Amino acid sequence: MSQDIYDKIMILAKRRGFLYPSFEIYGGVAGFYDYGPLGAQLKQNVENLWRSYFILQDGCFEISTPTITLYDVLKASGHVDEFTDLTVDCPHCNISFKVEDVIDESTTVDEAVKADCMYCPTCRTKLINPRPVNLMFATTIGIGKTRDAFLRPETAQGMFTAFHFLYRYAREKLPFGVVQLGKGYRNEVSPRQGPLRMREFSMAEAEIFFDPLHKDHDRFSSIKKNSIYLFDNEKEMEISLEEAVDEGIINNPALAYYMFLTQSFLLDAGIDPKKFRFRKHSDDEMAHYAQECWDVELLSQRFGWIECVGIADRSAYDLNAHIQSSGTDMYALRRFDELKLIKRRKIIPKMNVLGPKYKQQAGLIKNALENYIITDEKSKITVEIAGKKILVSPDCYEITDVEEKAVGEKFVPHVIEPSFGIDRILYSLLEHNYQEGKKNNEEYHRLTFAPKIAPIKVGVFPLVNDERLMSLAKDIDSSLRTKGILTYFDDGGTIGRRYARMDEIGTPYCITIDHESLIDTKVTLRDRDTTEQQRVLIVDLPTILKKFLN
Amino acid sequence: MSQDIYDKIMILAKRRGFLYPSFEIYGGVAGFYDYGPLGAQLKQNVENLWRSYFILQDGCFEISTPTITLYDVLKASGHVDEFTDLTVDCPHCNISFKVEDVIDESTTVDEAVKADCMYCPTCRTKLINPRPVNLMFATTIGIGKTRDAFLRPETAQGMFTAFHFLYRYAREKLPFGVVQLGKGYRNEVSPRQGPLRMREFSMAEAEIFFDPLHKDHDRFSSIKKNSIYLFDNEKEMEISLEEAVDEGIINNPALAYYMFLTQSFLLDAGIDPKKFRFRKHSDDEMAHYAQECWDVELLSQRFGWIECVGIADRSAYDLNAHIQSSGTDMYALRRFDELKLIKRRKIIPKMNVLGPKYKQQAGLIKNALENYIITDEKSKITVEIAGKKILVSPDCYEITDVEEKAVGEKFVPHVIEPSFGIDRILYSLLEHNYQEGKKNNEEYHRLTFAPKIAPIKVGVFPLVNDERLMSLAKDIDSSLRTKGILTYFDDGGTIGRRYARMDEIGTPYCITIDHESLIDTKVTLRDRDTTEQQRVLIVDLPTILKKFLN
Repeated sequence: MSQDIYDKIMILAKRRGFLYPSFEIYGGVAGFYDYGPLGAQLKQNVENLWRSYFILQDGCFEISTPTITLYDVLKASGHVDEFTDLTVDCPHCNISFKVEDVIDESTTVDEAVKADCMYCPTCRTKLINPRPVNLMFATTIGIGKTRDAFLRPETAQGMFTAFHFLYRYAREKLPFGVVQLGKGYRNEVSPRQGPLRMREFSMAEAEIFFDPLHKDHDRFSSIKKNSIYLFDNEKEMEISLEEAVDEGIINNPALAYYMFLTQSFLLDAGIDPKKFRFRKHSDDEMAHYAQECWDVELLSQRFGWIECVGIADRSAYDLNAHIQSSGTDMYALRRFDELKLIKRRKIIPKMNVLGPKYKQQAGLIKNALENYIITDEKSKITVEIAGKKILVSPDCYEITDVEEKAVGEKFVPHVIEPSFGIDRILYSLLEHNYQEGKKNNEEYHRLTFAPKIAPIKVGVFPLVNDERLMSLAKDIDSSLRTKGILTYFDDGGTIGRRYARMDEIGTPYCITIDHESLIDTKVTLRDRDTTEQQRVLIVDLPTILKKFLN
Repeated sequence: MSQDIYDKIMILAKRRGFLYPSFEIYGGVAGFYDYGPLGAQLKQNVENLWRSYFILQDGCFEISTPTITLYDVLKASGHVDEFTDLTVDCPHCNISFKVEDVIDESTTVDEAVKADCMYCPTCRTKLINPRPVNLMFATTIGIGKTRDAFLRPETAQGMFTAFHFLYRYAREKLPFGVVQLGKGYRNEVSPRQGPLRMREFSMAEAEIFFDPLHKDHDRFSSIKKNSIYLFDNEKEMEISLEEAVDEGIINNPALAYYMFLTQSFLLDAGIDPKKFRFRKHSDDEMAHYAQECWDVELLSQRFGWIECVGIADRSAYDLNAHIQSSGTDMYALRRFDELKLIKRRKIIPKMNVLGPKYKQQAGLIKNALENYIITDEKSKITVEIAGKKILVSPDCYEITDVEEKAVGEKFVPHVIEPSFGIDRILYSLLEHNYQEGKKNNEEYHRLTFAPKIAPIKVGVFPLVNDERLMSLAKDIDSSLRTKGILTYFDDGGTIGRRYARMDEIGTPYCITIDHESLIDTKVTLRDRDTTEQQRVLIVDLPTILKKFLN
């Protein structure tokens, strides 16, 4: 069977040290990959480029919260109940499958389960026991008196549960954005597709907290004439951001702004614009928390369009859930221009009923009731205490309409969330930048990485193994490193072979130090893509390279 | 009770957004902390400074491997059996304690267990059931047919299990160094001491692979005259690296070199040299894998000298363990100058005996036998297959002495490991850089962070809320951010109050834009530590600041 690009990239990735299966010496396990020296550096460069867009340019702040997450948090967020895949078992092979993976395009998951005629891809035995299986990795905190916990399925919850701290850090002004980069975990039933479906993966997520009355961005007007690539599940189109919002294709300017920021980042990183599009989720495929969602899809030769970023309007879903479950005041305040007399419906807890009825929990229920905002006229009030929903019977409180002087009104912020799957972006960068051919009758590969994301910036080559050349080359090498430029020192083989080794890992520049260099203090600087060479003064190298690399 | 520095720092850290307990809205759980916007940025700056020492300067390469680690890996490394704390239970409170935490200085763990007279610190009930408890967080990979796994207790194993890839990346030359930064996990029995004893923590580890015959570093001679601060468990001393090696206080030049690199990094980051020392482990306190170990201890007011870095000579322990357990060839080659006839003892497996005896496993055992290096004359040969030790009976193989022409001889590299606890270093940086006093009758705090690690580099202040000033200030702010300088824009309150807010979080510079700025295109640049102010041209700001910040 001939190799497709995926095979070729995975072979190159392993051979050169970008990416390889974890624990291979113990037989490996699907869904886990190591990033080798080049992969880890590429990843870091892409993450830092992402930071330059979301933190330096957009002004979000970054936080870092644990990967181990308490049961209570993920119960409240809906993940304990909803983060599942419908799964079936093969009684013969004793293996489980995700239903989605064993049906063909002519049917849906629901239909297949109803029809009860799925077969094992290996032994063709009839698959049994369809059921939702939770995809979180479970663990336990402590010894003796333990607490249940999971490895986080997303970094987002760490930002929601700290909202009150972050709102204060933002000096109580909306909108503001919080980001987190780090590991996410998903215990896939039967992961295939290599690095595109990992059980432990890297994410970069931003949560932008908005007043729902103002889903706007102060820079939208300066970028609205730019084009964006959309696919509405029927046709692809290139359309201005302004038009997309005006025609209601994208719900609001804030969402449109973050879609543009996302597109700018990915194209800057080196994604092929011809293999890039935004696709809108249809109503039946949205996550349990989403109101509107756009995916960035990147085209891969073997797998077709793959989802690499999701930009969701999560509305007030998560903050509401945590306010109700924890009873913490995580509202924002919409300030009035002056003190105002406002009417509101207020819940007044009756401790004389709550006390005997709920004992130790009465205090928590009282707090939850006081923080409860009555948003509709339904009469049932449910609060969540320590992960359990409690329907509070009407004899425990009174509802009264009160008039109060207030500086503003409380509300639950809405959230727009651009969520990036870093590993899929890295794989796409490898595929979109892969070139192959022959040179001097040998296979030749080139990765055309943008200089700013290339793992190694400069190859440093002494022409021959001569003491003076070696010493000068080493001095140049270490002076570039002192200036923050990652080099690769190579004194083995012909210069042609050294160039080829650097081209194969996407190093944009090479410097050769020859005997002439000892006299004219110049070196040969070679460009990967044009293969053009120029003589430059050693003393000018840092300035020239820094300019090229940005 | 009056607050000590620890209390004051933890209050400041929470109020300003450096660090706060995780999951607090659900009651929290000991040993987990969130890094807020300032803490996460500080952490990233310290990690990047670390990288500049270990990657750019020393030439190590960084990799990134999963936090979830297969049972087989940690069984081989000894963690399943050895990574334990002796634990006792209180039958009354139903809480477990680490024995170390419930005894006083007059006794040792062994003595206390033998004497069987430990009491609960809360209720004084006699503690029972002393036993070693494994401190790894356990989880399970997959659905149905599952694999046991743990969250990694150290990042190191990911570097050992990929040694054969990394050796190839290093083009089969020793020494070379590999680093990893990321999460480590330790399910502490009863964590106290806040951020100094976290259950999920950040580490930066380097594994330097050496030929044991050459534990040297090519830069040792250029740094050997420098001083290092040592404590030999009796007295503290300042001694040159050269002397320390010559007198046998430090085992070898390579170890000494990495101790110096570590000291340079920490002092550069802003650790107080008067609160810094290396302490040598006594034989009975070394980890199960270590041959010689030095800790960096940093002084804290409340906790005394705390261990923040361990620099261990792990010898060939880990690679040996993985070679034996997995049967993978992870040797290095010591090349001869020319082809050489060498004698060696060789195991020749007998498949006709192995086949019937071990069935499916016969092939694995054959590989393991062929890779086995006979190091002593003991006649028993044990191989490890899939985590199980198998004593291979002598009828399964022959041992013969063979003479072969060889390009070199195989050996197991030794490892020197500098391992950094990032969270403890961050706490120490907060404590060592904390200053307090009064200004205008108000409490005043200053963090004297080194500019290169300060989370925010520059405060940008429009003097008054005037449209033209605001617009100019915003332009300056965004142009600095474009150049990679993280700013904090503040237009609230008096300039004095804005300075105080920046001093409190360690921002080294502030810029004030006033009406004069509109005319002379200059702004006031103020230095945190000297409080001196100078007028500088707006156009010169990036250059001036970049110089100050490095």
